[in-house]
Amino acid sequence: MSSSFGHLFRITTWGESHGGGVGVIVDGCPSRLKLSESDIQPDLDRRRPGQSRIVTPRKESDTVQILSGLSSTGRTLGTPICMWVKNEDARSEAYSEMKDKFRPSHADFTYHAKYGIRAWQGGGRASARETVGRVAAGAIAKKILREKYGVEVLAYVRQVQKIMAEINPDQVRAAAVEANIVRCPNPLAAEKMIRLIEKMRREGNTVGGIVEGVARGVPAGWGEPVFDKLEADLAKAMLSLPASKGFEIGSGFDGITLTGREHNDPIRVRRGQVFTTTNRSGGIQGGISNGETIYFRVAFKPVATVMHAQDTITEQRVNTTLRGRGRHDPCVLPRAVPMVEAMTALVLVDHALRQRAQCG
Amino acid sequence: MSSSFGHLFRITTWGESHGGGVGVIVDGCPSRLKLSESDIQPDLDRRRPGQSRIVTPRKESDTVQILSGLSSTGRTLGTPICMWVKNEDARSEAYSEMKDKFRPSHADFTYHAKYGIRAWQGGGRASARETVGRVAAGAIAKKILREKYGVEVLAYVRQVQKIMAEINPDQVRAAAVEANIVRCPNPLAAEKMIRLIEKMRREGNTVGGIVEGVARGVPAGWGEPVFDKLEADLAKAMLSLPASKGFEIGSGFDGITLTGREHNDPIRVRRGQVFTTTNRSGGIQGGISNGETIYFRVAFKPVATVMHAQDTITEQRVNTTLRGRGRHDPCVLPRAVPMVEAMTALVLVDHALRQRAQCG
Amino acid sequence: MSSSFGHLFRITTWGESHGGGVGVIVDGCPSRLKLSESDIQPDLDRRRPGQSRIVTPRKESDTVQILSGLSSTGRTLGTPICMWVKNEDARSEAYSEMKDKFRPSHADFTYHAKYGIRAWQGGGRASARETVGRVAAGAIAKKILREKYGVEVLAYVRQVQKIMAEINPDQVRAAAVEANIVRCPNPLAAEKMIRLIEKMRREGNTVGGIVEGVARGVPAGWGEPVFDKLEADLAKAMLSLPASKGFEIGSGFDGITLTGREHNDPIRVRRGQVFTTTNRSGGIQGGISNGETIYFRVAFKPVATVMHAQDTITEQRVNTTLRGRGRHDPCVLPRAVPMVEAMTALVLVDHALRQRAQCG
Amino acid sequence: MSSSFGHLFRITTWGESHGGGVGVIVDGCPSRLKLSESDIQPDLDRRRPGQSRIVTPRKESDTVQILSGLSSTGRTLGTPICMWVKNEDARSEAYSEMKDKFRPSHADFTYHAKYGIRAWQGGGRASARETVGRVAAGAIAKKILREKYGVEVLAYVRQVQKIMAEINPDQVRAAAVEANIVRCPNPLAAEKMIRLIEKMRREGNTVGGIVEGVARGVPAGWGEPVFDKLEADLAKAMLSLPASKGFEIGSGFDGITLTGREHNDPIRVRRGQVFTTTNRSGGIQGGISNGETIYFRVAFKPVATVMHAQDTITEQRVNTTLRGRGRHDPCVLPRAVPMVEAMTALVLVDHALRQRAQCG
Repeated sequence: MSSSFGHLFRITTWGESHGGGVGVIVDGCPSRLKLSESDIQPDLDRRRPGQSRIVTPRKESDTVQILSGLSSTGRTLGTPICMWVKNEDARSEAYSEMKDKFRPSHADFTYHAKYGIRAWQGGGRASARETVGRVAAGAIAKKILREKYGVEVLAYVRQVQKIMAEINPDQVRAAAVEANIVRCPNPLAAEKMIRLIEKMRREGNTVGGIVEGVARGVPAGWGEPVFDKLEADLAKAMLSLPASKGFEIGSGFDGITLTGREHNDPIRVRRGQVFTTTNRSGGIQGGISNGETIYFRVAFKPVATVMHAQDTITEQRVNTTLRGRGRHDPCVLPRAVPMVEAMTALVLVDHALRQRAQCG
Repeated sequence: MSSSFGHLFRITTWGESHGGGVGVIVDGCPSRLKLSESDIQPDLDRRRPGQSRIVTPRKESDTVQILSGLSSTGRTLGTPICMWVKNEDARSEAYSEMKDKFRPSHADFTYHAKYGIRAWQGGGRASARETVGRVAAGAIAKKILREKYGVEVLAYVRQVQKIMAEINPDQVRAAAVEANIVRCPNPLAAEKMIRLIEKMRREGNTVGGIVEGVARGVPAGWGEPVFDKLEADLAKAMLSLPASKGFEIGSGFDGITLTGREHNDPIRVRRGQVFTTTNRSGGIQGGISNGETIYFRVAFKPVATVMHAQDTITEQRVNTTLRGRGRHDPCVLPRAVPMVEAMTALVLVDHALRQRAQCG
Repeated sequence: MSSSFGHLFRITTWGESHGGGVGVIVDGCPSRLKLSESDIQPDLDRRRPGQSRIVTPRKESDTVQILSGLSSTGRTLGTPICMWVKNEDARSEAYSEMKDKFRPSHADFTYHAKYGIRAWQGGGRASARETVGRVAAGAIAKKILREKYGVEVLAYVRQVQKIMAEINPDQVRAAAVEANIVRCPNPLAAEKMIRLIEKMRREGNTVGGIVEGVARGVPAGWGEPVFDKLEADLAKAMLSLPASKGFEIGSGFDGITLTGREHNDPIRVRRGQVFTTTNRSGGIQGGISNGETIYFRVAFKPVATVMHAQDTITEQRVNTTLRGRGRHDPCVLPRAVPMVEAMTALVLVDHALRQRAQCG
Repeated sequence: MSSSFGHLFRITTWGESHGGGVGVIVDGCPSRLKLSESDIQPDLDRRRPGQSRIVTPRKESDTVQILSGLSSTGRTLGTPICMWVKNEDARSEAYSEMKDKFRPSHADFTYHAKYGIRAWQGGGRASARETVGRVAAGAIAKKILREKYGVEVLAYVRQVQKIMAEINPDQVRAAAVEANIVRCPNPLAAEKMIRLIEKMRREGNTVGGIVEGVARGVPAGWGEPVFDKLEADLAKAMLSLPASKGFEIGSGFDGITLTGREHNDPIRVRRGQVFTTTNRSGGIQGGISNGETIYFRVAFKPVATVMHAQDTITEQRVNTTLRGRGRHDPCVLPRAVPMVEAMTALVLVDHALRQRAQCG
């Protein structure tokens, strides 16, 4: 069980979907940053269940409390910041059948195989509820990036099943993302996506899609070759999110259809400012940021819980079937957006500190 | 600069493409393993330049020396194993133009931005030559996995530019991969790929593609949620390789076109053996292996060095052009195969030890 | 700020002496261990203020809550265990003078120099209150060592100022340690120590002393040369405790008066059992346990807060004086005993897991 | 086996006393530092065998080679610096008896117990030869501290068996340390120490003593509470050295005879400069440097190899005796001085970078 992420700006999450709550410790945060719960809550609200008709109706206010790390004047002390969100609407009874049966394509079987025991009520640590801590910590990271480095981090839904939206990562604005409940800044595509997700919910079925993450204003020089390349740490961060199945940066998988002559990003200088005329690299070359916009895509599979009987086995290794119950998301994408932002910001702020450490 | 990888089976690589050589330290290797250079050299031979007509003709024998960590009877002591490969064919003169000019879509500009200095002769640490240490360490990891855990790791070329090969990850055999110089186990596709790469070389151009990695026989239970999920560590490992732009596991990016009902892997038991009837999960669920074949794909962009003039700038920030010279790969894929295998094995053996540590 | 300790059994503490409380996350704990608050509370009671007439009368019940990591049947899930103790008797007013003045030989000046801000109410993270989390985590570590490995960890007061007690680390029993309020298992010495501490309290002065730590039953083979030697990790653990100034293992500083012929521990075998006829090594040779009793001593300086005016400066760098106020320990030793036990157990259980990882 | 030390300025040592050599990788070194072998060799010469009549006559030139990490202009690239020293005078035959017998108070038995195998020729990794890598890396750390931070690190012999030397850590100079072969800057004491060591060598016996380490000019603010306190990391560093048995900082073990009123260091300010009028804290308070001289003492036991028969057992667990042979130090102290300096500098430079990372 490895619940810590980051080297210098280091977070440790804890908590199960059913139990005393979920939370996070942020260690290594620079001191004297103005901080209060009001910096954290908005991102938690974007992540929380019950926020719209296309996400799970589980009722959680997800109200954050900061338990440590702040001075009496509301500034960070440089000491660990502990943040806690109580569980409020945990209905174990909805999960009683899962006590003995493994849900297909969930982590029930694998947790059991690994630990010989599991929190069958709601998925335990494998629940998306674990990401509360990430999003809370990410809100601090985003604030530091914005205020100290002028870096803007955002994410949005780019595809739901087969519905794709064209979006320009250099120009998309946060307000456009938040303008609709599916968090796709292309309004026409957003409407189609919402209709599809509603249809899926009615059918007791689910869909997946692609979230695109963007970081603008990252100076050239962040990233630690050869193993902690910026894109490597972003890939790890994204693949550590529940339900993610793929990561690609810049031209990604599509870039392989181009030849080298077509794919390379020419470098130019204008009024002392270096830039590339294309950005197939996605803002990172050799593991280090080059000053261009960083953008990448994350594939999320369709939610595993469907309201139909599916083949599975019992803990005693007998074939059986299981039908999903309880309150679930028909599509994880709208709530994955703040998670992708949070993990992006955590990677970037950690690398900002690492860069300052070695290169001054 | 972060040159270490892994928690318990931990490697540290060193060395530039031009200089005293490249190497690796493996720390945490279990003791009493029979080991000699002959266990390492075959994988280095698969990685080395000059091995065929479709890779760079740079002449390096890449002969490995083990400097430490072995008993006089040729067994591992449990102490650090240092392995060293001398540089033999380093021709700095081929790079003299790069002293002042940044190669587009290489790491020249970003290393300079980060460190204020760079090894302009051949790319320094950003050169694929750095992977010598990874492949040498990976050979030890593969040996442990094979002998102690019955796990087989292999990789192969699945796509070069638009030429795709259908390959079954459950059945592909190492001999079929090595049967041709492009390392694609589908002979028809392999032939087309080779022709394309040769054409590219003649044209002074380059192509990219997809390598698929496979691990068979991994027991259920490896992987450390929530941040060091097995797929997260694999993603990081792959994105840390030079020229990689994407990673997807199991159904990956294509999986998002399916609904949850279609995508889930039903679990069954037969004669006490648990298995899934499909494997869209790619052998990992919730960050932990489930006993099925692990398979994933890595996108490699076309090699950045092309034999044509391209726009770039000088170190003094003046617009100019640069034409590639020297001896370069028209396609990195055939040599990337042992790199992908090495990184896969390093991730897996580390997680095998971590699983043993916590869960006995 | 580095608030994590341990590689595989890893704790992260948080919280200030005045604020929402103090706590700890234990990550990497083996699963299926029976665990409840009743395993933790006794050690916290040994650490808490107000437990006797020779410690600070600050009124804290120090009641622990386990917020995560347990199954509904009271067994560890293998996931992070979060434990929390609320602050109850925090009187900021007693510290108002410290808002502007640095207490001599405290960490007020250094925290201010480092972070540019500090929690002046009670010492913040530099307060001994931070050790609540260590002691809580240590109680779990002790339980694992006892139940899974047959290892007994204990500590006791060996010296208070100039009052030394002769104690045999091979034979001392926990009950004898707890038989008096100063936690010295030699009753005659204990009585003198108590009288001295009471005298110091009456005089508004303080004293220090030596705690001896012991681990019995550690099998040969724990410890990770060359940097994570068992004694090196113990030394770090002890010097990370507030007010500690020295560490010595086995013969320690006194051993240097012997020659090599006198100092060496002869090895013998009897009925297949290997042992040394003396134990000047303190149970560790070359960084690895040899199966003998591990014993070491930790020096704790006299408590810095005295009820007399002392020279110091203000935050604005003006010379002034400061007289201690509030409720403080005249001697930290009795409460340091469970802290030393906790840190010892944390080091040992981490190395037990590391040994299992590499050497099976 | 844990062969890495440091978080940001991170070293990894490798090599056995008999084999291909010993070495070190330094990762995280700031770039653009002027560096060549001539910066490293002087400290290796102070560590090497055969340097004087009171150390082992083993003939090793200990000539260092830098294999990577430097630009063609002799500046650090910010990439890993690999340094290598070949073994030259390894006579395995002198150790043939140790193949079957464990040397008392050496690490032979414990390495065997841990790994099930050991390098019996000369102690393998437990040999003081392993410290070559530390001293080489430490030379770089000292150079950075000196040139970038104005920090001076030095160490000297303060006691050999019962011969103590009074030395003022604020005023001792490096030239005085190097003025005699025992490295004690007090000439009268030095002469006595040398005579004692020579007597011991004639008698085939050995002695231990105390090395004092000093760091002057460290600014206030280095050190990472609560676990990576500066004194905690120094304690670990020192206890990781072969033959060390104790560490104390500032007033150390003797400080416990004082009361709090006597022990506290009053703080004063003069012309804007903060200082303490005494320095019982040893330059560190609450884990963070306060700007005063850091000084501490390390106890080294008498060398375990004596030229007399001593009780031990065979690998087959049969009682026997063993008499030391070969070329050994009668006293490790003179050669321990550069080791203590190296470890001190490594701790400090790592904390300098950590401080810059979090606090800018």
